Amino acid sequence: MPDEFPRYLCKEWDAADPLAGLRDRFVIADEDLIYLDGNSLGRLPAATPGHLDRLVRDGWGEQLIRGWPTWIEWARRIGDRLAGHALGARPGEVAVSDSTSVNLYKLAAAALDAAGDRRTILVDAEDFPTDRYVLQGLAEARGLTLRMLPSDVDRGLDLATLRTALDDDVALVVLSAVSYRCGALLDMAEVNAAARQVGATVLWDLSHAVGAVPVELAATGTDLAVGCTYKYLNGGPGAPAFLYVRQELQSRLRQPIQGWFGQRDQFLMGPRYDPVPDLDRFQVGTPPILAMATLDPALDVLAEAGIDRVREKGRRLGELIVALADAWLTPYGFTVASPRDPARRGGHVSLHHPEALRISRALAEQGRVVGDYRAPDRLRLGPAPLYTRYVDVWDAMDRLRDIVERGSWRRMPGEASRVT
Amino acid sequence: MPDEFPRYLCKEWDAADPLAGLRDRFVIADEDLIYLDGNSLGRLPAATPGHLDRLVRDGWGEQLIRGWPTWIEWARRIGDRLAGHALGARPGEVAVSDSTSVNLYKLAAAALDAAGDRRTILVDAEDFPTDRYVLQGLAEARGLTLRMLPSDVDRGLDLATLRTALDDDVALVVLSAVSYRCGALLDMAEVNAAARQVGATVLWDLSHAVGAVPVELAATGTDLAVGCTYKYLNGGPGAPAFLYVRQELQSRLRQPIQGWFGQRDQFLMGPRYDPVPDLDRFQVGTPPILAMATLDPALDVLAEAGIDRVREKGRRLGELIVALADAWLTPYGFTVASPRDPARRGGHVSLHHPEALRISRALAEQGRVVGDYRAPDRLRLGPAPLYTRYVDVWDAMDRLRDIVERGSWRRMPGEASRVT
Repeated sequence: MPDEFPRYLCKEWDAADPLAGLRDRFVIADEDLIYLDGNSLGRLPAATPGHLDRLVRDGWGEQLIRGWPTWIEWARRIGDRLAGHALGARPGEVAVSDSTSVNLYKLAAAALDAAGDRRTILVDAEDFPTDRYVLQGLAEARGLTLRMLPSDVDRGLDLATLRTALDDDVALVVLSAVSYRCGALLDMAEVNAAARQVGATVLWDLSHAVGAVPVELAATGTDLAVGCTYKYLNGGPGAPAFLYVRQELQSRLRQPIQGWFGQRDQFLMGPRYDPVPDLDRFQVGTPPILAMATLDPALDVLAEAGIDRVREKGRRLGELIVALADAWLTPYGFTVASPRDPARRGGHVSLHHPEALRISRALAEQGRVVGDYRAPDRLRLGPAPLYTRYVDVWDAMDRLRDIVERGSWRRMPGEASRVT
Repeated sequence: MPDEFPRYLCKEWDAADPLAGLRDRFVIADEDLIYLDGNSLGRLPAATPGHLDRLVRDGWGEQLIRGWPTWIEWARRIGDRLAGHALGARPGEVAVSDSTSVNLYKLAAAALDAAGDRRTILVDAEDFPTDRYVLQGLAEARGLTLRMLPSDVDRGLDLATLRTALDDDVALVVLSAVSYRCGALLDMAEVNAAARQVGATVLWDLSHAVGAVPVELAATGTDLAVGCTYKYLNGGPGAPAFLYVRQELQSRLRQPIQGWFGQRDQFLMGPRYDPVPDLDRFQVGTPPILAMATLDPALDVLAEAGIDRVREKGRRLGELIVALADAWLTPYGFTVASPRDPARRGGHVSLHHPEALRISRALAEQGRVVGDYRAPDRLRLGPAPLYTRYVDVWDAMDRLRDIVERGSWRRMPGEASRVT
């Protein structure tokens, strides 16, 4: 069966890959390690250490407080870069700010406050936990109904389910453009249109989509979105998140955490909160300059690649995982736990196996392949196109096959660990 | 008059200063520049660039996602270091998290939710804007009364005013331990005791106190506190903030932003939010690892100095500013706009002058002394004890005197700038 997918074919694809040269733009500290977890924490761009060190020494160290007139623009400047290179949004619609969870809270609360007497929030029952938890808190505090839409863990939300649930009591719909487990990719334009028909607002979580698939916020008629920058955007561990508010909505929405970075004439420090009429009203406290700075070199690489080419390569890397899983792993109890149609799948693929935890540990320790495990029974593989070669995927799947063939994963412990 | 305070005396004090050697632990990029704005953005510790670079290269670059089992403890590990070296709190009571504004929102909301039918919030009318704005938002959303306690901008809040306002309708009192403009230092134990007598909770903003004066959260019976780490703690521009919740209160309070970092068995990603019973329930999203890491080398220096010695030197530096202002600047229209009793003053001193904006600009450009301006008429000087010499203060005041003597500040523009 390996003959159907010979390794040399992957080498040929790599040789013809227009993005192949960009792998050198990342630090590959260990050439033997295959990293398929760019969907959790992207690799370190090679330019980032120097960039950050210059900011620390020349910015903080030399300019000291005098750096702030420049830095204070960064939440918006880098937001605009994100808007242009990754989000299909207009200048002035994206800001880097806080964490994804805090941004989700701010924008969801703002949308609910503007929703009149509508009393229902819709969320995918299988969506990423922080989204569900934040909405539970908001719903309970306001006496609203949070409806968990049933969803297929392996295929994502069926739009028919959403359509049935949409009525004129729905204030807010929160969905992930790409599902964190199976990678299902929703049609944002279709969802936005369906929600708009009943007067509901959609707030998108783009964490697993941004940097992997082209997100066209303007073209899809998106109102609100949040997302993280440490996955496919390669911003580093805990890099700050972003938020997007469509320009026409900015002056009409108010978020609940009334911090001084949303204040008109901020440094007059006036007596009452009087939010600026634009995107800055969704900012709160002092922005994290050092953490935000890493996004500049990271976005340079993405800009050079172009998100469409990233998507095209990502699609093919995903197809390769699915094909090799079908061919090599089915006999060992694996099933593909992601949509099979690449057009309906983001940048990562999940495989189902009842022993996924121990297998994922064996894959890392014995096979030197880093993917990740999602409770209770999924192995998730995210081959980030900017630095992952086709041959990496082939080798990773080959090592995985070897581990299940030999059953060497049985030597691994099965107890849960704090972080997975 | 200069003869009363000869420069050589400052040189002698520096020679005898037990903290003098710590100045070398900071990057002093420009020996001619006198930096008296450590109360806005602390200097760069010399060990920080290397520390951060190692984390970026060896942590993010090499360990990649495998770094998280270590990093996930940092919000609490570094919080415990802060608790021990700067806050007089017990282990498990302090976490690094979000921005000061977001933390203030979380803890204020948690306290209000636990306050039964009490309907009043008290705040110093002259407190830092973000505190007032956040509370305005919470009060409006809940239909509560926010009472702005009148306060002397130059002397801080009179405790008699607070006592008069405290009654059994007060749910929450929010105060800064050190006032951001005049530097007035409140007696936290006295305030906590007075509030407790009427059953009100006090939430302290320690932003301008931490790292400048010993904050004894346990000994003063403090329930809740937040604060920032980029001023006297030298964490860098936009470094993450901290929050403190007294251990006995942790399981009884709930904050409104229900993020996944507050969840029990976080990586089981269960269906409903079920917050851990300890401090972690006040965490929200993925913590900013790179931005947080700078606190380790910064706290090393503070730990070596000891907060009591920092306070003692800071007190003397402040007294020197006041004495020189009285002696040299009074004829030119300056008045001291801070408490004169050093025991009632934190680490910075404000000077009042109707032309403070232009004078502060001249001081920076002509005098090469960086302090800051606070609208409408205050020059604020924060001589951070870890790296400021007595002779720096003498020279700064001498240059200031020269500028007002010659009237050279009249050449500076008087228009407001975005950042001050």
